[in-house]
Amino acid sequence: MTTFDEDLEDAAAGSSVPGVHPGLRRARAWLTRAVEPGTVDFWRYVDDVGPLGAVREIRSGAAPDRIRALVGARAEEDASLTDLRRAERCDARLVVPEDDEWPAYRLHALAVATADEPLDREHQTDRTRALVPPLALWVRGAARLDEVTDRSVGVVGARAATAYGEHVAGEFGHQLGERGWTVVSGGAFGIDGAAHRGALAAGAPTVAVLSCGVDRPYPAGNGALFHRIVDDGLLVSEWPPGCAPLRHRFLVRNRLIAALTRGTVVVEAAARSGAQATALRARKLGRPVLVVPGPVTSALSVGCHELLRQEESGARLVTSAAQVIEAVGSLGSDLAAPVDRPASPRDGLSDLASRVLDACPVRVGVSPERLAVLAGCEVLEVLRVLPALELAELVQWTGTGWRVSPPPKPTGAAP
Amino acid sequence: MTTFDEDLEDAAAGSSVPGVHPGLRRARAWLTRAVEPGTVDFWRYVDDVGPLGAVREIRSGAAPDRIRALVGARAEEDASLTDLRRAERCDARLVVPEDDEWPAYRLHALAVATADEPLDREHQTDRTRALVPPLALWVRGAARLDEVTDRSVGVVGARAATAYGEHVAGEFGHQLGERGWTVVSGGAFGIDGAAHRGALAAGAPTVAVLSCGVDRPYPAGNGALFHRIVDDGLLVSEWPPGCAPLRHRFLVRNRLIAALTRGTVVVEAAARSGAQATALRARKLGRPVLVVPGPVTSALSVGCHELLRQEESGARLVTSAAQVIEAVGSLGSDLAAPVDRPASPRDGLSDLASRVLDACPVRVGVSPERLAVLAGCEVLEVLRVLPALELAELVQWTGTGWRVSPPPKPTGAAP
Repeated sequence: MTTFDEDLEDAAAGSSVPGVHPGLRRARAWLTRAVEPGTVDFWRYVDDVGPLGAVREIRSGAAPDRIRALVGARAEEDASLTDLRRAERCDARLVVPEDDEWPAYRLHALAVATADEPLDREHQTDRTRALVPPLALWVRGAARLDEVTDRSVGVVGARAATAYGEHVAGEFGHQLGERGWTVVSGGAFGIDGAAHRGALAAGAPTVAVLSCGVDRPYPAGNGALFHRIVDDGLLVSEWPPGCAPLRHRFLVRNRLIAALTRGTVVVEAAARSGAQATALRARKLGRPVLVVPGPVTSALSVGCHELLRQEESGARLVTSAAQVIEAVGSLGSDLAAPVDRPASPRDGLSDLASRVLDACPVRVGVSPERLAVLAGCEVLEVLRVLPALELAELVQWTGTGWRVSPPPKPTGAAP
Repeated sequence: MTTFDEDLEDAAAGSSVPGVHPGLRRARAWLTRAVEPGTVDFWRYVDDVGPLGAVREIRSGAAPDRIRALVGARAEEDASLTDLRRAERCDARLVVPEDDEWPAYRLHALAVATADEPLDREHQTDRTRALVPPLALWVRGAARLDEVTDRSVGVVGARAATAYGEHVAGEFGHQLGERGWTVVSGGAFGIDGAAHRGALAAGAPTVAVLSCGVDRPYPAGNGALFHRIVDDGLLVSEWPPGCAPLRHRFLVRNRLIAALTRGTVVVEAAARSGAQATALRARKLGRPVLVVPGPVTSALSVGCHELLRQEESGARLVTSAAQVIEAVGSLGSDLAAPVDRPASPRDGLSDLASRVLDACPVRVGVSPERLAVLAGCEVLEVLRVLPALELAELVQWTGTGWRVSPPPKPTGAAP
């Protein structure tokens, strides 16, 4: 067994093996335990010196003071190999930005948001709200992270949801799944669980982004659900195996649900709730914020209605999965707009008109009598359709007969 | 008993009796039965030649062809006196634009909208959608029409409302009533009735705008409610006593609910409903459209959610009467902004500073020692507060002593 330092050196030297070097993956694994995710300064530092350099500098004491202060006593520890093996034992893996599987396109928005953060640490957004990219993601399940999140929607809401909220979340999950969209949510009871169950019932993969280790998904009461998610979809976490679902981690986690998806749907949310927080993060990332209304008499729709009343939230009311797809489809930044065939004057021609048009020669004009023979119809019928064809600039009179209009000169692009 | 023609002549000649001449009122009464309300051409004609002239021209056959075509056989008939007497028997009256009680300010928006209608009758908005002022209003009840509608909100919604909708309408009605706002609605079962009952329970007047005669309010099942409305508020109708609540009249009536109020609240509405129509009329009149959401699983909230999703509807989500009042209060065109006392530099002065200021003479400056005596304090204390008073331009140094700063020259109005 090689030491961590040997692994790092080996990785730095490069290798002929295709894919990510194990030493690099181990370095990233180490970093996920070194500092709580969401820290602007730490992500910037790793981005700057690279994961190998960061680990070596921190462990050797060569890192800048402010970084060493962030890591503290954890600089001495190394659970990276244990964590990776622990992951392996539950069929989990660490996906790093260097992997093909990394959802780089979607997460790029976080890097952009972080670039806007001030240099002065005092003025940087605090860790629970900062839109910082993850350093790596522990994932567990059958799906590929980039593929399963490509066409995905965040569905978030209250843990203590009402029967109404759970019904709607389940319906939305099911319909999104049926139409080829992945549900991304947390792992909580209530809206999260209902959305996952709906998607799974439609035979669709679903992604639970956790605020604890993927080997011990929380809450245990959702154990059966997590097993089904692992079979078809993914459990995702920034925290290494074994980590506990601490309260502050939920807030940090929320940015990932917003960032991994094309838009976020809030199904039920109390006033000042985590679901609202996720919605605001989605908004900051330029992703549609979609909100399901509910009875004004329900405390669990207060947060939803607040979002819909705040113009700055940019929230849009939705009542069905179809409306969700319409919103994330048309606004999703990477959804290829369906390329419509440009309308052609030939569209909608009658069979007879098409036949007459096809009978017209390209160069020398011919008589209607001749066209009738070629098109297989009466001369009168030819005379009846010619005016419309001429009006559509499909045929022209040469002075001696009818011929096809010359095609317009090709232009570079449509105006 | 005078004939109608004598009455008209008498009215045209004018009278020394204060108020509206009975002949003029009779002419307006006749006009309310001559042509269905909402007809652009007819309202313009009456506006043009005046109610007396209109009745005389139509009855004598001198009116333009297009007006005679609108009136048809009804030109020969005269139920005006019968209608007025029938109204009188149920304590109703005809309020005409010439009355002080006419809600001229609010209804002015309808005249403005009608001015935008094209001259060509073919292109004018049809009668069920045109925003045409009423020619007169039959009202029944204790309240004054202009006063009771001054601070009013339309509350509209489905007849076949759910328990949720009726609960919300009742709550809104009650809270609006408690805060001095009048509910204006129709007379139907469901949301209309619930809103009226809520307002009445708060001891507030309420207004039901009917699409039938005020002597036979429809539906009969709301009879007890109508009696309570008459006691404190008003039944209002464009149609003379005895008229039936024909289907097309509901649509025409809706514009009055929108026009008489500062904003319209839609509580529950099915897709393509009358309540939506009222909301769109309010929108066209520049009044806030406020919409109560509901469960997305309820067919009776579909219309509400449609309004909230259509940007062009300008609809705003509301969850409480307080939010309604905030919206109509701040946007209501005639809501007097509370006149704040302009901030005075004297505000926030300490007791000591006030005493020193009050000790300063208007003309000749005096010494700090003298001020100390006058203000009842130490000289040092006077010296401590004088700089702040000078900075606030409340006192000035004359070269020999302190005096009050001369007041600024009076200006016509605040900038």
